[in-house]
Amino acid sequence: MSGTLYGIGLGPGDPELLTLKAHRLLQRVPVIAYPAPDGAPSLARTIAAPHLPGGQVELPIGLCMAVDRAPGQGGYDAAAPEIAAHLEAGRDVAVLCEGDPFFYGSFLHLFARLSPRFATEIVPGVSSVMAAAAALRRPLAVRNDRFAVLPATLPDAALRPAIEAAESVAILKLGRHFGRVKALLAEMGLMAGALYAERVTQGGEHLLPLAETGETAPYFALILLYKGAEPAILASERP
Amino acid sequence: MSGTLYGIGLGPGDPELLTLKAHRLLQRVPVIAYPAPDGAPSLARTIAAPHLPGGQVELPIGLCMAVDRAPGQGGYDAAAPEIAAHLEAGRDVAVLCEGDPFFYGSFLHLFARLSPRFATEIVPGVSSVMAAAAALRRPLAVRNDRFAVLPATLPDAALRPAIEAAESVAILKLGRHFGRVKALLAEMGLMAGALYAERVTQGGEHLLPLAETGETAPYFALILLYKGAEPAILASERP
Repeated sequence: MSGTLYGIGLGPGDPELLTLKAHRLLQRVPVIAYPAPDGAPSLARTIAAPHLPGGQVELPIGLCMAVDRAPGQGGYDAAAPEIAAHLEAGRDVAVLCEGDPFFYGSFLHLFARLSPRFATEIVPGVSSVMAAAAALRRPLAVRNDRFAVLPATLPDAALRPAIEAAESVAILKLGRHFGRVKALLAEMGLMAGALYAERVTQGGEHLLPLAETGETAPYFALILLYKGAEPAILASERP
Repeated sequence: MSGTLYGIGLGPGDPELLTLKAHRLLQRVPVIAYPAPDGAPSLARTIAAPHLPGGQVELPIGLCMAVDRAPGQGGYDAAAPEIAAHLEAGRDVAVLCEGDPFFYGSFLHLFARLSPRFATEIVPGVSSVMAAAAALRRPLAVRNDRFAVLPATLPDAALRPAIEAAESVAILKLGRHFGRVKALLAEMGLMAGALYAERVTQGGEHLLPLAETGETAPYFALILLYKGAEPAILASERP
């Protein structure tokens, strides 16, 4: 009897924003796997740390952070057979995922390789987008709003029509695209409703209006943008 | 010293998809408030039930479900002073919110009325959109995808450009708009990549291809739509 592959969403960073289900599974799985970018500490492993009983087999997956930039899947090609061996031996394996496993997550690569052969369960998690809205005290979307999530890695020609066809927008993966995206939003007249969030719930959280930010931003920072600066109903119901 | 107002995301329905933080707060707040549509059981109260120690003051908020259709805010106008009285007396109040409080949630109405006067904290939760993706085993968004969340309540003229400017789409609030939205997706040639989910993680979950659904859908059902049927990278990495 083979083990089950779990893709476990760990939430945005605060270990208390894990679900009870994720916590229960982390307490009992014998094997954990997680992305471990070369030389950097693994955020997923750090979030999970307080929930691990100790003694699990650990499988760090190298090269993960490079995936979005240059699709070299070597880390997953190497990790998948290792994980498969544990599953074949009847051991459940939990893959630790920042945020939600199916929302821009690297779990996709293991899901593609392993779910055709092994029982697989996805445990959804709190996304950094929702956590940023909570921290910024700005509703993401209300009533009939159209809400778009956009990677800053896209060219302006792909971003512009999506921003035009939404009332509320989250822009992810800023990094080296930050200056260009800010210039696009300024050109579209949307800076007034734009907020910036970095390291949400991870400690060292950095929240401010986009107009007050500097020239650079890390990859895991995001912009929340609401046309008209905030939902109209919020202003109308405020005392 | 006034109490704190908490907007607590309870997740999509499974009580185990609550966060540890939501669980801790529900164990200790003396007052809970929640939407209670006339005559129907409160989903938020049902999700929270296993986490409540008993003995809390309960404030059901009437008329909530009508808000999106006819913006009569009477329930919130009545509930806000009741909640304010508890806060003024130094008692913390938790407002129970299905999914995430700031993602199409009715918590907005209490946030507008009370957050200018009282300390307010938002506890983000797992959205039904992420839970549906997990249940349907279909990644919501990967790599450079543009992802749009759209209420079916909007006219086709508002939906169409948003669908065109996205690789992946979630359509919420189906109800009586279901037939029209299906016809729009068929006309746009997008039925092949469309999945349907109802009552995700709530018991009696109903998951199927959109093309196999009937004529009607409840308000709290959703469509997940991926152009090209699924992320290309998923197919390319599958063994």
